[in-house]
Amino acid sequence: MIGKLFIIGLGPGDAAMLTPQAAVALTLASDLVGYGPYVDRAPQKPGQIRHVSDNRKELDRARHALEMAAAGRVVAVLSAGDAGVFGMASAVFEAIDKGEPAWRELEVEVVAGVSAMFAAAAQVGAFLGHDFCAISLSDNLKPWALVLRRLRAAAEAGFAMALYNPHSRARPWQLNAAFELLREVLPPETPVVFATAVSRVDEQIEIVTLAAADSLRADMRTLVMVGTAATRRIERPGRPPWVYTPRFAGDAA
Amino acid sequence: MIGKLFIIGLGPGDAAMLTPQAAVALTLASDLVGYGPYVDRAPQKPGQIRHVSDNRKELDRARHALEMAAAGRVVAVLSAGDAGVFGMASAVFEAIDKGEPAWRELEVEVVAGVSAMFAAAAQVGAFLGHDFCAISLSDNLKPWALVLRRLRAAAEAGFAMALYNPHSRARPWQLNAAFELLREVLPPETPVVFATAVSRVDEQIEIVTLAAADSLRADMRTLVMVGTAATRRIERPGRPPWVYTPRFAGDAA
Repeated sequence: MIGKLFIIGLGPGDAAMLTPQAAVALTLASDLVGYGPYVDRAPQKPGQIRHVSDNRKELDRARHALEMAAAGRVVAVLSAGDAGVFGMASAVFEAIDKGEPAWRELEVEVVAGVSAMFAAAAQVGAFLGHDFCAISLSDNLKPWALVLRRLRAAAEAGFAMALYNPHSRARPWQLNAAFELLREVLPPETPVVFATAVSRVDEQIEIVTLAAADSLRADMRTLVMVGTAATRRIERPGRPPWVYTPRFAGDAA
Repeated sequence: MIGKLFIIGLGPGDAAMLTPQAAVALTLASDLVGYGPYVDRAPQKPGQIRHVSDNRKELDRARHALEMAAAGRVVAVLSAGDAGVFGMASAVFEAIDKGEPAWRELEVEVVAGVSAMFAAAAQVGAFLGHDFCAISLSDNLKPWALVLRRLRAAAEAGFAMALYNPHSRARPWQLNAAFELLREVLPPETPVVFATAVSRVDEQIEIVTLAAADSLRADMRTLVMVGTAATRRIERPGRPPWVYTPRFAGDAA
């Protein structure tokens, strides 16, 4: 008997941003697999088994999920945001690619979710309102020189950016180095957003300039966004500004 | 009396991908504003007024919505996918930026949605599984030379890409020109996906190589995705391949 594997994006955190499709997939699963805080978001269901693991062991977790599905279980692998954006989807397909030939016969369904970067952009206006990119600052799996090359290419070509994995205990200096590089390319007043725990009760959003951006504002739950030379602030009396990147964001820096 | 403006991302089309948050916002609105096919997706509600307009008049539509909200209405501006990704959010904030000072006092809530590019990536595996970018091929509001510059920068730096607005009657040659440029940078076997009407009943997904990519496969409802030199196909007997961009997508072309 061959089971099924769901790879589910749970959205940024607020249950009102979990899609009905994802909610149904969660109820169909015999087994939930993921990082503890993500698995904790799924409603309790009698008989459903929860397999919680450390956030950094993506490939081991993917293999475990595939083994269970191959044994006939209905397994749901959980990611925050969209599972295809620096989430578990890529790790699962990498595990299939390198793994048992039988895994290619499994039913695998990736259930898209609301990405954290779009929830963050929405909270401040339309920060990613034109051509943009997403870059992971983690150098676990790619050389740091390549991260810098991508940051420079994106800034020079006028992409707004979302920076994932900006800071952790194992990654204490990278965000600061990224800001230093970006300051060589982009104007000092370029808007930067620190969006922490987006859509959750402890959400914190800070809008600063690139010149004043301090990497210590970021923690593991923070998404950092950097605008373009065209990104604009709309000031509002007594309230935080709106920030948007215009559709005609023509001029690169 | 001051009203409220929602800017809502409806997701790619399947109602199961509309978030509960967006569904609630739709019921709260006195007025729905948008391109006809998007407004048609909202459930009928007695007394709610629908303002349907041509897809290309974003700024006029944004101003109309703002005027109604300023007059005390609860207005929902609708976009497909996520409203912040080449949708109405940027147009609304641009209209505010250039418009009546009173509009800055409005309540504006952007309701994030499932982006079409992530739904498309999920349908084939994990196409955007590492650093990626989104580029609009429309040259209505930016010079075509800048589109080409961004395509080249993205390909050279090893970003996977989602290409929005690839084809229309007014934009018949741009996608072909984009493919020609990308063929100068990326290997001929680089995977390309044509994802048309993603998640809807007439969904059509084609996976080809960059060498064989034919711009005539795209229409107005198509999202085109182009991989990196690291993007991999997983062949499956008797079924379409899975395609994913690995997390270690280290080497640019």
